[in-house]
Amino acid sequence: MAEPVRDGWTYAKAGVDRALVGRSLERLLGAVTYRPPPSHGRLLDLPGHYAGLVRIGRETIAVTTDTVGTKTLLAEQVGSWEEVGEDLVAVNANDLAAIGARPSVLVDCISSSQPSPEVFDAIGRGLDRGLRAAGMALIGGETAVVPEVVRGYDLGGTAVGFFPRGRRPVTGSGITPGDVVIGVPSSGVHANGFTLVRRLLSAGAIDLGRPRPGGNGAVGLELLRASRIYTNVSEALAGRPETQAFAHISGGGVRNLVRLHPKVAFVLDRWPKPSGLFAWLGELGGIEAQELYQTFNMGIGFVVVSRPVHIAQTLRRLARAGAPDATIVGRIERGRGVRLPHLGLAYEGYAA
Amino acid sequence: MAEPVRDGWTYAKAGVDRALVGRSLERLLGAVTYRPPPSHGRLLDLPGHYAGLVRIGRETIAVTTDTVGTKTLLAEQVGSWEEVGEDLVAVNANDLAAIGARPSVLVDCISSSQPSPEVFDAIGRGLDRGLRAAGMALIGGETAVVPEVVRGYDLGGTAVGFFPRGRRPVTGSGITPGDVVIGVPSSGVHANGFTLVRRLLSAGAIDLGRPRPGGNGAVGLELLRASRIYTNVSEALAGRPETQAFAHISGGGVRNLVRLHPKVAFVLDRWPKPSGLFAWLGELGGIEAQELYQTFNMGIGFVVVSRPVHIAQTLRRLARAGAPDATIVGRIERGRGVRLPHLGLAYEGYAA
Repeated sequence: MAEPVRDGWTYAKAGVDRALVGRSLERLLGAVTYRPPPSHGRLLDLPGHYAGLVRIGRETIAVTTDTVGTKTLLAEQVGSWEEVGEDLVAVNANDLAAIGARPSVLVDCISSSQPSPEVFDAIGRGLDRGLRAAGMALIGGETAVVPEVVRGYDLGGTAVGFFPRGRRPVTGSGITPGDVVIGVPSSGVHANGFTLVRRLLSAGAIDLGRPRPGGNGAVGLELLRASRIYTNVSEALAGRPETQAFAHISGGGVRNLVRLHPKVAFVLDRWPKPSGLFAWLGELGGIEAQELYQTFNMGIGFVVVSRPVHIAQTLRRLARAGAPDATIVGRIERGRGVRLPHLGLAYEGYAA
Repeated sequence: MAEPVRDGWTYAKAGVDRALVGRSLERLLGAVTYRPPPSHGRLLDLPGHYAGLVRIGRETIAVTTDTVGTKTLLAEQVGSWEEVGEDLVAVNANDLAAIGARPSVLVDCISSSQPSPEVFDAIGRGLDRGLRAAGMALIGGETAVVPEVVRGYDLGGTAVGFFPRGRRPVTGSGITPGDVVIGVPSSGVHANGFTLVRRLLSAGAIDLGRPRPGGNGAVGLELLRASRIYTNVSEALAGRPETQAFAHISGGGVRNLVRLHPKVAFVLDRWPKPSGLFAWLGELGGIEAQELYQTFNMGIGFVVVSRPVHIAQTLRRLARAGAPDATIVGRIERGRGVRLPHLGLAYEGYAA
């Protein structure tokens, strides 16, 4: 077993100061005061949610944008690019899934110092795989060559989705104590926390080509594994009366749940023990559980909040939609924030 | 007058190999073969156009994505960020304008090594100004902190537009010999060609705080000036029977016109003499006219192709829409490609 190389690694120590990001974003949003006339579309206000919504004519359109982050640097080290191509679809499709929007189209934005045809080919194959899983079409993109701004590749994208006739956005506003929290497992680390992951790998002088203790296959590839796409999960349950909310467990970990409803407590007392990969990362950096659960998905990539009625039927429905591994991970109680009582963890707000 | 510091600068010599970008993009697009079922939206094929179109329910949605490119590095040097914030709206709004779509919403994507509240505040003020000009709402965004990928800031965004009841996309498919080409002046270099611009400034040891020969005000600020937004121009003419096409003169310069129709010739014999800024850049780098006109907008940022009938009325309409400076810059003839006969320039395709 690898020895902890340093005690108490946090995301901030790895170079990402969440408070500074929050303050900066507040300034930007504070300066943007303009609201266009309704002839340019009617905005539906859902502050803090995964996607923005606008009513255009008779349709409600959902728009979300996200990047693969520093996972591209691991792709470069390992020399494998399909996974991050697929991730580029996943990070956006899963944000649409979290609001119950059906994915329609994606545009990609690839900034690089110098594009390579081989890398672009692999990214394309990954995109194609992701698009198939999400039922989404690539309808445009931008290839920016910005040698003095970007080292390697920065992969971003924007997805547009919609609500089929009769379906409303799944917002979480109806969450009530007594509701059940269902978790759908992740495929690994997905595409969050890689600034920290890479620091740990480097500080621990980890050989990416070898398995970690207890792992199968090269740990570089295990970490690179593409994010699971939850479109089918969302499509199977969105619009059903018992479905109250979805959450995409991305950057921010379990804190993402707080975004769904500020005035209930998410008690995750049955959150499954995460796979050995997360435990290994934790040991490698001597990372506190409090930090781990607000940085990584810890084994659950997507969450459904559902009324307790017909819960067996809901799980069967999830199994048919490709998620037979979904399980009950907790419940809604009176109170606030997110708790994992068996681990002694409690989080108040979305931001750390 | 500054002496030419080097002969024959081209965009490729400045570090951007357009052919390599083209080859890479071809590989990516070749690998993406999936087309989703119509229940996820119906794609409208408009290869090579400025925005992707999808039919969702009863609405046709236009989506485009673009970045400010290396202009952010000049913003950093000059210490002024409002302009590139406004550019982020402009590059996307103008792509929507070029297809006659009404802007609705924008999402921004700011990747940085470390965000600064002051920079984000200025970017926000610029965004707000751009959004007002385009009639667009900011409904989301991503703030990626990727210290090992990005130096400074990379500013990208995605805009979503639509076609008001009764308006169709303005595609150029009906362009016919005899049509008139109208040009609407740019506000300067806009947000293209800055990798080359910065090389020239650095090779010429130009003091950004002083005026260029013949210029007013610091040349750094002159180069940084925000892109003009052509939403009002597009809104004034889209849907009118005499309007055949719009073009946004961005990266690729006048070659952008070839995207509109492959089987006519765009004869730009009345293209106005560009402002001293472009002449100065050309002299600074000893840049051939052939290269200048396929890299910069050369004084015209947006083009309208119109039937020759009622042309005076069209120009009056443009004046009322905020473009009293629009003029006739050429006409459509039989043939192919783009020609500026008074300069001895001819371009065949879109890509160099």
